[in-house]
Order: sequence, then C-alpha cells, then structure tokens
Amino acid sequence: MEKIKSLDELFLEELKDLYSAENQLIKALPKMAKAITSTELKSAIEHHLEQTKNHASRLEEAFKELGQKPSQTTCKAMKGLIEEGEDVVSKAEKCAARDAGIIGAAQRVEHYEIAAYGTAQSHASLLGYNRIEQLLQETLGEEKAADKHLNQIAEDSVNPEANEGM
Amino acid sequence: MEKIKSLDELFLEELKDLYSAENQLIKALPKMAKAITSTELKSAIEHHLEQTKNHASRLEEAFKELGQKPSQTTCKAMKGLIEEGEDVVSKAEKCAARDAGIIGAAQRVEHYEIAAYGTAQSHASLLGYNRIEQLLQETLGEEKAADKHLNQIAEDSVNPEANEGM
Repeated sequence: MEKIKSLDELFLEELKDLYSAENQLIKALPKMAKAITSTELKSAIEHHLEQTKNHASRLEEAFKELGQKPSQTTCKAMKGLIEEGEDVVSKAEKCAARDAGIIGAAQRVEHYEIAAYGTAQSHASLLGYNRIEQLLQETLGEEKAADKHLNQIAEDSVNPEANEGM
Repeated sequence: MEKIKSLDELFLEELKDLYSAENQLIKALPKMAKAITSTELKSAIEHHLEQTKNHASRLEEAFKELGQKPSQTTCKAMKGLIEEGEDVVSKAEKCAARDAGIIGAAQRVEHYEIAAYGTAQSHASLLGYNRIEQLLQETLGEEKAADKHLNQIAEDSVNPEANEGM
C-alpha cells in the first residue's frame, strides 16, 4: 500500500477510522442499553444510538463529497473502548454501581469521538472541504452534548445512588 | 471473582485501569517521539512522558491512601489507542502529515484520560477521598493542558506544513 504523504491522504484515512468507530458503536450500544438499571441512562443511550446512526450517514455523505465509496479501517481504539465497557458489565452486578461504570465507559467513548472529530474537522477546514467540515461540526456538537448529558445523569442520580449502594 | 456492587469497589477498579493506562503510555511515548519530524512536537511528547511518569506515581500514592498495593487491570482502550498511534506511524512517511496524524492519536489519548480522570475524580469526591481527589485533579489539569498544547502545535505549524506537503 502506498504510504501517506499528504494531509489529504491522512484525512481520508481519518474518515475511514471514524466510519468504523461509528459502525462498531451502532452494534455495541443496544447491548449496553440492556445492561443498564437507570431508566434515564437507558433512554440517553438509546437516544445516542439514533444519533450515532445519523453520524454514520453524515460520514457516508462526506465520502460522497470526496468522490469515494464509504469504507472503513478497523478503529482499534473503539474496539478497545467497547471491550472496556463490556468488561464493566461483566464485572459488576446489575445495580447503580454498574450504571456508574457504564457512564464512565460511555464518556470515554464520547471523548474519543470529540478528539477524533475535532482533528478531522480542523483538517477538513484546512483542506477547504467546507461541506464536510460542516457535517463533522454537526456531529462534534452532538458528541459534546451527549457527554454533558451523561455528566448530568451521573451527578443527579446514578452516582449518589451507587454511593448509597442502591 | 466477587462482582462489583458498590461505588467503592468500582473506584478501585478505575484506579487499576488508569494505572495500566499510564504504564502503557510510559512504554509507548518514547517510540512515538522517535517517529516525529517536528522538533516542537517531539519536545512536547517528551515533556508529556515526564508528566506521565508523575501521573503513575500519583496513582501509586492513591493506592497507598486506600491501604492497597498498586496493581493494574489491563486497560484495553489504551492498548487500542496506542495501536492506532503505531498504525499512523507505519502507514505514513516521516513527514508533516505523519506528525499531524500523531497529534490526532495523542489528542485521542489525552481525551481518553480526561474522561477517565474526570470520572474517577467525581467518584473520589463522592466517596470522601479528599487527598486522592486532589491527586486526580492535578493529573486531570495536566492532561487538559497537554491537549491544548497539542492543538496549538497543530494549528501553528504542523497542520499548515502538512497541507503544503512539507
């Protein structure tokens, strides 16, 4: 395979990595939702699943803008992040402490995506891909909002309940 | 193994995961530094290596506060994040585009740690572990600063050079 030498080539690789990350999440989130006790947290994860499907569609549009077919390079980081979430589920009983662990895992995922979309967006901007930059910005905003929402659920209900052993 | 049922047990598991993450980084960062072209980026990564050693020491102090010996549970997410960084190095020629990719990988690592330390710090606070909370807060501040510094290097020099094909 030809080695990457330009920002343009790097950017295409970033889109393939993100597309893999989103597709892995689409498979993982329903399983995660089933392992949750808190109805508020479950509904936040289910809502984020719908957003995630939309993020994958936006990436498909980005590939189209570049005249490329959507393709993926396995995102190894997301693979590890999801495995970490699955470990929390298997190591903890179904209770508020497990929910607190799932929030921790989900916020790691959000932050991964915030970093990855942030990088890709700044590269799109430099490369003059205005429409793609806009698409990535929309997703980035939703990832940041999802992270804040998880923080709120943790502070308002899940963490205090876990601390009381509920 | 006994299943996790309380925030206290979850918190100990979080410290073990973080301790593994920091130790993995201590091994990975020197290799990453060697693959870099930009002297500014190389020195930022080398500086962060020194900070990372300090982060591991703070976690050792946290274990001590809990009356525990430092131990680790392999952090699978960090394993994936590091593999992703190594892939950037192997897929790109040694040039500014590779540096831009390394910054992307390093910011994913920083964001992972920002999320993980953020969660652990809020749990320490709820559990009343004031000294540990302070230790985690110090590291969290350094991770956030490192992320901002990487942003600045990307914007000021590496990304524009990568875009000009230097």
